Amino acid sequence: MKALEDKILKEGQVYPGNVLKVGSFLNHQIDVPFMCECAKEFYSLFKDAGVNKVLTIEASGIAIAALTAQYFECPLVFAKKSKTSNIADNVYSSAVKSFTHNCVNQVMVEKAYLNPGDKVLVIDDFLAHGEALRGLFDLIDQAGAEVVGAGILIEKAFQNGGTPLRSQGYRIESLARVASMDADSGTVTFVE
Amino acid sequence: MKALEDKILKEGQVYPGNVLKVGSFLNHQIDVPFMCECAKEFYSLFKDAGVNKVLTIEASGIAIAALTAQYFECPLVFAKKSKTSNIADNVYSSAVKSFTHNCVNQVMVEKAYLNPGDKVLVIDDFLAHGEALRGLFDLIDQAGAEVVGAGILIEKAFQNGGTPLRSQGYRIESLARVASMDADSGTVTFVE
Repeated sequence: MKALEDKILKEGQVYPGNVLKVGSFLNHQIDVPFMCECAKEFYSLFKDAGVNKVLTIEASGIAIAALTAQYFECPLVFAKKSKTSNIADNVYSSAVKSFTHNCVNQVMVEKAYLNPGDKVLVIDDFLAHGEALRGLFDLIDQAGAEVVGAGILIEKAFQNGGTPLRSQGYRIESLARVASMDADSGTVTFVE
Repeated sequence: MKALEDKILKEGQVYPGNVLKVGSFLNHQIDVPFMCECAKEFYSLFKDAGVNKVLTIEASGIAIAALTAQYFECPLVFAKKSKTSNIADNVYSSAVKSFTHNCVNQVMVEKAYLNPGDKVLVIDDFLAHGEALRGLFDLIDQAGAEVVGAGILIEKAFQNGGTPLRSQGYRIESLARVASMDADSGTVTFVE
């Protein structure tokens, strides 16, 4: 999506350690009218897939996921993160490694909110190593529901998280795919 | 808003300690089409107030705040919570006591995202003791911006958080105002 690439080039800031800061429109302040355009793009991509539920993970995926769910006229479920391994027995949970924070979080969803027969679209802001996405897919599998695919705003393609998931047959649509970033020059290039 | 009261009566669960669980449509699973109706109601209430920014606090306020911001065609900023008192110097921060978790969190917003001249509508899911709302108003004041008011989905009116804030002149609009709750019988009554 050209408009998102332009937005990243204009407002994104590159920091050492492959950090792309997009706090002005996505992670802290959210440019809601612009995010509505991104949400419409996700709807356009998946509108024929029978989606009846959107799943994301707290916190920064919630806004784009809610805006997307409105076009599908369906509920949104957000998985909760917990550092504890005390998991109640009424939840599905999956361990997700965070490379950014160098820790393992449990992500969890109450069993009541994911059911067999659900056709679930996962929406998230970033795809890097793919750990969060793998965890969300795992929750959907545990529920006996179907993964329709994933809509991602920004994929750091050079970190290759999408490759093994696509090889497994998952449909993953990213609106911007970053090929490289350089903190010294502040440049970002995209996959052609 | 009658539809929200009906939803609470139908789907809400009352637990000891004045806990009202609304995970099926608001806190964990989000009934997005229904939340769009609530967001339109907030727009209707504040549409003549010149709102150019919506402010909420992570995580469960983000969805309703994003849906509301789209009707105002304005950005959303969400304050971040941190248990640490190490505050960077590029943020506004305020201490917020949590009665639920019996702790004090710092809530913070990067200075770049709240500015003098902003007319800010605060949106949140719950108003109980009013601590979170007071903290968000404080952040807006620190920025030299204007508090237009607050739109709240569910106010636990019996916990009186809204009273002192309204006495100070803040406009607080709650779509459902709970007068009492009883965990034994599971009943909820609303302010007339």
